[in-house]
Amino acid sequence: MYKLNAMDEKQVTLNDSFWSERAKLVRETVIPYQWRILNDIELDAPPSFTIRNLKIAAGEMHGEFNGMVFQDSDIAKWLEAAGYSLAVHPDKDLERMADEVVDLLERAQEPDGYLDTYFIVKEPHKKWTNVRDWHELYCAGHLIEGAIAYFEATGKRKALDIMCRLADHISTKFGPEPGKLKGYPGHEEIELALVKLYRVTGNRAYLDLSNYFVNERGNQPNFFRIEAEARQDESNYNLAYSQAHVPVREQQTAEGHAVRAMYLYSAMADLAKELNDESLLDACRRLWSNVTQKRMFITGGIGSSAHEEAFTVDYDLPNDRAYAETCASIGLVFWAHRMLQTDLNGDYGDVMERALYNGILSGISMDGKKYFYVNPLEVWPTTTNHRHDMQSVKTTRQSWFGCACCPPNVARLLSSIHRYIYSYDSEGICVHLYANSEARWKQSEQLITLSQQSEYPWDGRINLTVQMHEPAEFDIKLRIPGWSEGATTRVNGKIVSTHIESGYATVHRRWEDGDQIELLMSMRVQRVKANKDVRANAGKVALQRGPVVFCIEEVDNGTNLSDIVLKRQFEPEFHFREGFLEGLPYITVQAWRSAPKKDEILYSPLSVDERVSTVITAIPYFSWCNREPGEMLVWLRTE
Amino acid sequence: MYKLNAMDEKQVTLNDSFWSERAKLVRETVIPYQWRILNDIELDAPPSFTIRNLKIAAGEMHGEFNGMVFQDSDIAKWLEAAGYSLAVHPDKDLERMADEVVDLLERAQEPDGYLDTYFIVKEPHKKWTNVRDWHELYCAGHLIEGAIAYFEATGKRKALDIMCRLADHISTKFGPEPGKLKGYPGHEEIELALVKLYRVTGNRAYLDLSNYFVNERGNQPNFFRIEAEARQDESNYNLAYSQAHVPVREQQTAEGHAVRAMYLYSAMADLAKELNDESLLDACRRLWSNVTQKRMFITGGIGSSAHEEAFTVDYDLPNDRAYAETCASIGLVFWAHRMLQTDLNGDYGDVMERALYNGILSGISMDGKKYFYVNPLEVWPTTTNHRHDMQSVKTTRQSWFGCACCPPNVARLLSSIHRYIYSYDSEGICVHLYANSEARWKQSEQLITLSQQSEYPWDGRINLTVQMHEPAEFDIKLRIPGWSEGATTRVNGKIVSTHIESGYATVHRRWEDGDQIELLMSMRVQRVKANKDVRANAGKVALQRGPVVFCIEEVDNGTNLSDIVLKRQFEPEFHFREGFLEGLPYITVQAWRSAPKKDEILYSPLSVDERVSTVITAIPYFSWCNREPGEMLVWLRTE
Repeated sequence: MYKLNAMDEKQVTLNDSFWSERAKLVRETVIPYQWRILNDIELDAPPSFTIRNLKIAAGEMHGEFNGMVFQDSDIAKWLEAAGYSLAVHPDKDLERMADEVVDLLERAQEPDGYLDTYFIVKEPHKKWTNVRDWHELYCAGHLIEGAIAYFEATGKRKALDIMCRLADHISTKFGPEPGKLKGYPGHEEIELALVKLYRVTGNRAYLDLSNYFVNERGNQPNFFRIEAEARQDESNYNLAYSQAHVPVREQQTAEGHAVRAMYLYSAMADLAKELNDESLLDACRRLWSNVTQKRMFITGGIGSSAHEEAFTVDYDLPNDRAYAETCASIGLVFWAHRMLQTDLNGDYGDVMERALYNGILSGISMDGKKYFYVNPLEVWPTTTNHRHDMQSVKTTRQSWFGCACCPPNVARLLSSIHRYIYSYDSEGICVHLYANSEARWKQSEQLITLSQQSEYPWDGRINLTVQMHEPAEFDIKLRIPGWSEGATTRVNGKIVSTHIESGYATVHRRWEDGDQIELLMSMRVQRVKANKDVRANAGKVALQRGPVVFCIEEVDNGTNLSDIVLKRQFEPEFHFREGFLEGLPYITVQAWRSAPKKDEILYSPLSVDERVSTVITAIPYFSWCNREPGEMLVWLRTE
Repeated sequence: MYKLNAMDEKQVTLNDSFWSERAKLVRETVIPYQWRILNDIELDAPPSFTIRNLKIAAGEMHGEFNGMVFQDSDIAKWLEAAGYSLAVHPDKDLERMADEVVDLLERAQEPDGYLDTYFIVKEPHKKWTNVRDWHELYCAGHLIEGAIAYFEATGKRKALDIMCRLADHISTKFGPEPGKLKGYPGHEEIELALVKLYRVTGNRAYLDLSNYFVNERGNQPNFFRIEAEARQDESNYNLAYSQAHVPVREQQTAEGHAVRAMYLYSAMADLAKELNDESLLDACRRLWSNVTQKRMFITGGIGSSAHEEAFTVDYDLPNDRAYAETCASIGLVFWAHRMLQTDLNGDYGDVMERALYNGILSGISMDGKKYFYVNPLEVWPTTTNHRHDMQSVKTTRQSWFGCACCPPNVARLLSSIHRYIYSYDSEGICVHLYANSEARWKQSEQLITLSQQSEYPWDGRINLTVQMHEPAEFDIKLRIPGWSEGATTRVNGKIVSTHIESGYATVHRRWEDGDQIELLMSMRVQRVKANKDVRANAGKVALQRGPVVFCIEEVDNGTNLSDIVLKRQFEPEFHFREGFLEGLPYITVQAWRSAPKKDEILYSPLSVDERVSTVITAIPYFSWCNREPGEMLVWLRTE
């Protein structure tokens, strides 16, 4: 088991044009917009009631609780995003707003450490009676994550102390000891937060509680059954929805609510690392293989069904009814990143960048103001907007959601992309993602700097420069993405032969200050096919260039996109054109489509195809629906 | 407007091996099986309570009403099937059972003529307060149809008299006169039944009431809204679900519940004929065009969505989530048959046989004991049985349904196929369907017999013989099916040139006794394509031979049927093999499929296809799922 260390903003500076622009968008647009929403002063969105609930809980306002039972998580995720943003971009105004939130959280917290506005305000007598459905532990997890991010950004302990009191309170309620609940949350989240809290505070009790939650899950007799009986709840509950059908180590396939699954698996990966738990890591590897080889859309979207926002069965990946919740792909990145620290393998990095550049980024509009909760791979509005079984699929982004999990989740991720790029250990540094950035870490008892220059994801040439005082021998491991069909590595201009193992090319040498590495990956437009068991994609290909999946839209290609057939002769061209989609590239490629319709016969004998040659335009999937609404298609038929 | 006369069992004798076998199956298996179910003595099916409800209504048993609010319609459809069966195959035992039912109906009927066991037993104070949802008029319609069939078969008037009293009672409740309800049924059915009752009794009041129901429908202010307000029902009701969104003459597209729509349109066609109502006929033609050119599966299935069992939008025809209720296709046949009598056009006959040989016959197992309510065109059980949005699709036929509309509907149709074959008027006879049979009608003041011999639907050679006393001049119009790619007509061995108009070849001559007509239609296996706007079928073809659509099944072709690609070179073979599917034919054809899987990679660059040549076996769609359950597919990819 590897024990790699991830790097945070103290060690990594991101200065690329792709992600930094998006982090800036979050900082300048999303965080202030969400702040207005949380305070019910944004006119474009319905009131969120989140701050209001906190004020009522603190006894500073009169009124009823409003919103979802997990409404507190919105402020938690906002605080986390604000923390990440402040860490790289100090902003007195933002810090003041965040301080106000922290103060309010402190005033809302009960003397025993309890903190959940729903129960404080609305049903105080029902605390901890339904952790299956009522999200107390989920909200606590997000609050802990938010507080840690804020503490790490500002050094201010208040939020952290509040959350330690909350975690301590939870420790008095859950655990193996007599008199405590033998339970675990319906919606996982606190497990990974408690590992973070352990890492920040060094308090082993938090790690133990996380480990208890994870290992108790799914045991017999089932806690959710016991809990339901206690409250005379006879409703039929699908235990797999919450991954509580069997103990986690026995789970063979990814089941149930996709976001929940991701947060659980992320915690499992964390615990495996902290506790050297090989069998837990094996369970992670098994589930990883199931998710990414049988249950993941090419966009890194997961969750094939709107019903229970869940996984279904292997190879069931319907493009037009994909759920592929933005939050689930974010969870997949969390998990992948954690797996990388113990089980260094390019697969994790490949999936991480697949989700980042496609199914997550599609969740937010280019102006940062509108969101997709569900990320389909095919829409044709006339049908999508009318079919009852497609009602979860929206054909245009929404301003906000009643269940507003995704927007703040996107914000916290886009504010912290720098954390996902590098890892290191005593052997050297690993480069997981490519983006202009600088990493600083201690190696061979000196501070080393690795700076990365590239035009990724649009160009496969990566230049790295090592800066150091004294020469030192260590590894620089470079992820060679699954999409690349050959990579050349040069050190100081000379080709070096590298050993590629598990998707990483290792350059081991005695490095000197100013040494340069050039990694050159051929980046061409590829036609990607799906496994033949994916029925939805039989006879179809997706266009992908580097890590970016492309799609075609009605605005460029007219209606009836499914009529388009790529020519066998595949000669795509890759373009940038000023004024097109805010500078994003596009692909043109030759295709066939039916000749203009002569009649309206519904069924007729196959005749010699009357078809016309056409050139179609494909754009990055993540940028769809930023112009006019209309049809969109990722998987294209091909001759 | 044509005024053709349909023919019933007094004029037509069916003696083919295809439909007669199925009528026999209904007679020997289905009607007795359903009788046992209706009497709650069939062990294979849950109790129906239908007869029991009638006995309770008649005051002969104590107990509560059980079953659906429209449970009475089951006995009505059974009586109708029994009537058709008795008309061609007298059976003292069956007649005695039917007499018992009629006697029971008489005893259950209230003195004022009211008859609906749900309201008599359970909610007498709520009669006629919710005709939108509660099916009183729907049940009355079916009871009227059943009584007419029984009267026509046996000459016994009792049932007819009961139903006249019921219809008379309804006339006192609904109509334009002051004090009457300005309403119409939520589920259409009584409209067409009242036209039948008018035709049998000559009582014009029934025609007028039918006409009132049809023409009042959808007017403003909307009756369903008024009715809902009166009972303080504030639920949101989709008026289009019941075709009540606009007046019927203004309806441009087929909307809402497909069975309801078919029964309404059938009544509209009936009324147009009886009342020379050209604008109503125009509305029928417009709706016909919409249904059959934009909203019909190749099987003659209609209703693209399980939600509201309804039409959706043009070209939305998803094979795996087709609703295509058996009853809806039956309704389509009713409508087509009625349209033929006024608007003689081969389109109606084409659709009629498309539904009969495919989407209806698929609804009943070959042993007559199991049924499909929903008739998908694609199933892969591992997914179909797990996806929530496919839960209405069953991958095996069921014994019976809680809402058991389809089985008795199939029974009444299969018992009366002979009624759909011919029409006549003073100009001559029209042959709509091909099947060994004999038609007798009066032409030029004598009785003429036309006998038909063929091996349809497996052979396109039809031999007809005219028998008569005196030579006479008249038309014999033969439908030239849309699938035929050329038809040759011979009279007494000599080719005659026929004028084909609106899908009918007219042979006009002075006929003599013994004259023979041979119609030869080339019947080869065709690859049928769908309109390019049908996204679900882009790049795919269906195999059709004559009127019969074929499908492929897992039992013959292994799993992963969507992986199969027909070769461009299309050389199908048509076979019969003893012992195969009870003598049904099958098609073999060359195809490609993927080479056995080497790895489990989910997404990979398109490479030179590794594929293997294979021969696939296709069977008639209607016979699917009569052996082992498994995957099934109608639309196949093609090179």
